Amino acid sequence: MSRANRPIGVFDSGIGGLTVVHTLRRLLPGESIIYLGDTARLPYGTKSHRTIERYTLQMGQILQRFEPKLIVVACNTASAHGLLALQAASSCPVVGVIEPGAEAAALVKGPVGVIGTLATVSSASYDEALRRRDPDKVIFSVACPLLVPLAEEGWFDDPITDAISRRYLNQLPFEAKTIVLGCTHYPTLLPSLERTRPGTRWIDSGEVTAQSVDRLLQGSLGYRTESARGPLRILLTDASSRLREVGERFLGEELGNVELVEP
Amino acid sequence: MSRANRPIGVFDSGIGGLTVVHTLRRLLPGESIIYLGDTARLPYGTKSHRTIERYTLQMGQILQRFEPKLIVVACNTASAHGLLALQAASSCPVVGVIEPGAEAAALVKGPVGVIGTLATVSSASYDEALRRRDPDKVIFSVACPLLVPLAEEGWFDDPITDAISRRYLNQLPFEAKTIVLGCTHYPTLLPSLERTRPGTRWIDSGEVTAQSVDRLLQGSLGYRTESARGPLRILLTDASSRLREVGERFLGEELGNVELVEP
Repeated sequence: MSRANRPIGVFDSGIGGLTVVHTLRRLLPGESIIYLGDTARLPYGTKSHRTIERYTLQMGQILQRFEPKLIVVACNTASAHGLLALQAASSCPVVGVIEPGAEAAALVKGPVGVIGTLATVSSASYDEALRRRDPDKVIFSVACPLLVPLAEEGWFDDPITDAISRRYLNQLPFEAKTIVLGCTHYPTLLPSLERTRPGTRWIDSGEVTAQSVDRLLQGSLGYRTESARGPLRILLTDASSRLREVGERFLGEELGNVELVEP
Repeated sequence: MSRANRPIGVFDSGIGGLTVVHTLRRLLPGESIIYLGDTARLPYGTKSHRTIERYTLQMGQILQRFEPKLIVVACNTASAHGLLALQAASSCPVVGVIEPGAEAAALVKGPVGVIGTLATVSSASYDEALRRRDPDKVIFSVACPLLVPLAEEGWFDDPITDAISRRYLNQLPFEAKTIVLGCTHYPTLLPSLERTRPGTRWIDSGEVTAQSVDRLLQGSLGYRTESARGPLRILLTDASSRLREVGERFLGEELGNVELVEP
């Protein structure tokens, strides 16, 4: 198979990365996508650097079997702790969600807020990626451990989600008029986040990553040449009935067959 | 070493089981305890039967290395999905938290409510264990996925925890005047739960399990004969800085050295 016709591999710790697949399929409907979610060991956001790096490498190995033209690490926590190791170990290009998110945030004037999991925030990966582009950038970060379970519970537009968002976001000074959604689950909570902090410019790290994938394909990697809508295969390391229900809300279409793989 | 002087192995998916260790050390201060938390793969409560059973067997194998006189599965989800397999594979007795919890609930008159993780509630293990003791028992169950992350965030006594508890507990009819705390994290949330549903009798599955361990030692297993306070070793499959802080709140004493083991 010519390289351009090979699939794009998308990896996430669970099902949050399906929000990135949703955007990829809107922007690049012809591409073939293989999604791999490590649902047997999710979430990564509360775990240590060493463990997240090890899991990311194992997931990358599974995706390599499908000879992807590109791997997208559609998880902020795995991008923060495992991207460099996976890039070193992979025979294809590997992109994470943090560099595109930081690039978009660096273009904005004024202080920037970053929200994410405990592991993403404590890695300071956004701070580093932003300061590489603008050494004087003022950055405020806050870890929001309850937002992932809230999104997975499906309380997307809910007074309890409002109250929790308020508690977390009030820790960011009001000068931060731009906030990076540093977790692929968070875009599903935007109604609550926007109510909590109206007038904010939100940067969806998954959305800007899908745009940077488009630019990579436009370059040397190439678009898939078949004209039909690209297929989507979903591989998970564990499948509970709940995942299907939540996954379809994240993907915005039916999940179809889910294949189980050993982690 | 004589059997009575061997350690008690306590296994949990994470650190919630430290609430059971806390009770064991109060009731049985002379016992030596080895605690194993599968923090690299927690939580189990959202995962499938097959995966939880596999993890429980692997954790049991690690504990067997220490030649325990008894293994306590201090996790409701692992007890619901992995206890039978672990009992079949182990050379020492293995007790879970569901049978003692159900036993205590069966002694109470009237309908019983059960709260737990998605996996515990969907297993119907409490229903089955209760009906074995009282076929006419009326049982209501509700899964409360956000209570574990709330306890781990440390919002023990908090208006947000009150609001979330209210939403879950209001799904149980008011005739259920006795509610089983079917997850070892939940006792830490009792202030909120009690405010939400005053006058309820709460059954702490971990507390009654510690009492049944006492009865087992009184029988053939025997108490440790050394008079000094028993040692506590903590093994985890992953150690993040956050775990120590939350773990000490669950255990009610300092964690001391934490040893890392491969899952």
